[in-house]
Amino acid sequence: MGRVSVLTNVLKANQEIATENRRLFEREGTLVINLMSAPGAGKTSLLEATLRGLESRYRIAVIEGDPTGLDSQRIRALGTRSHQIKTTGTVCHLDARMVAHALNEFPVQGLDLLLIENVGNLICPASYDLGESLRVVICCVAEGAEKPKKYAVMFHIADVVLLNKTDLATASGIDLRELEKNVREVNAKATVFAVSCKTGVGLDAWVAWLREAIASRRIAEVARC
Amino acid sequence: MGRVSVLTNVLKANQEIATENRRLFEREGTLVINLMSAPGAGKTSLLEATLRGLESRYRIAVIEGDPTGLDSQRIRALGTRSHQIKTTGTVCHLDARMVAHALNEFPVQGLDLLLIENVGNLICPASYDLGESLRVVICCVAEGAEKPKKYAVMFHIADVVLLNKTDLATASGIDLRELEKNVREVNAKATVFAVSCKTGVGLDAWVAWLREAIASRRIAEVARC
Repeated sequence: MGRVSVLTNVLKANQEIATENRRLFEREGTLVINLMSAPGAGKTSLLEATLRGLESRYRIAVIEGDPTGLDSQRIRALGTRSHQIKTTGTVCHLDARMVAHALNEFPVQGLDLLLIENVGNLICPASYDLGESLRVVICCVAEGAEKPKKYAVMFHIADVVLLNKTDLATASGIDLRELEKNVREVNAKATVFAVSCKTGVGLDAWVAWLREAIASRRIAEVARC
Repeated sequence: MGRVSVLTNVLKANQEIATENRRLFEREGTLVINLMSAPGAGKTSLLEATLRGLESRYRIAVIEGDPTGLDSQRIRALGTRSHQIKTTGTVCHLDARMVAHALNEFPVQGLDLLLIENVGNLICPASYDLGESLRVVICCVAEGAEKPKKYAVMFHIADVVLLNKTDLATASGIDLRELEKNVREVNAKATVFAVSCKTGVGLDAWVAWLREAIASRRIAEVARC
């Protein structure tokens, strides 16, 4: 069997499990976010800022794809439930089966929001549906304005793009308008926020958007009951 | 056949072609560098700075793994031969076969130095030998000091680690000594340089080291003739 056929089969099997995961999340009325970025773009910092920004009335949990356990510790320090999918150094993405296994010991029941931090990689995670409701891609401005063109698949599938570390834009010689234009060229529909977890710029708008998404999810859930 | 067996076979086949590539490079006395990093860590800028720093008496060429062609254009603008391995948005690493194919139309004969810019990814490229002489990993300081721990396989296999964009260290809240210590924890033998392609800091030391590596290669070549 050729390599392409093997990959096709792997992706097909993944899709079946992702569909099961998605059914479970929808049944529970849980908004699930698949958070993706290159290494060091600020996924965990963005999670921390998001958890601080959301009211405590929300029931939230976090799944971390991480070899070290450091990220889960940071989330637990904020009083939020967190589960580590222990990846090894050669695991380049989370897949739907890993998430399904995690849910066996980390139940989703009653959650308003489940945030899944994927492995730091702008390529492979784009191909693996986890069953999420929304795909959020973080782009650190210091990576350069042309990144959306180079990693077009990832930016194309994003529902939300967060341009992070905007406090480094001037020092990095980055024009935020050019970066956003490059995002728009590969994805005209994505919601884009320019944020900085260091200065707090833009976080209120992102958290308000997320609050609306959780509310819409609940309304859909109530309407179905 | 299970997925692990497929991967084992893929890596075994890759190794055979990489060995052939390496024999060719050694026969020609060409020093070959496999340049790897996360997206946006500054591989192309480092290549530009390296090409400017090396004397014009060296015969140098560059292979770019890139979907856009932008990187090859930047290299050619400096008067250096460059070949693009046109990756698609789902190709997460270069492999030995891609390099062997590139060499069919981009001969290595007579080269002192061949620089290969891999796909921006800190995971998959670490598993695929291209036949290179040296593996050089770039880490942008803005990615955070803990990256060597999280991407330990990549940092473990590096011969040289370049801590790049040191001009952003203070603004990013990064202690360069801590970052270097974290590199050392996973790889005590790597040669480490702290550099900035913006300010030029550290580039002379890196280029001097590279010049020595080219010279050693030539001596080995002359001794064998």
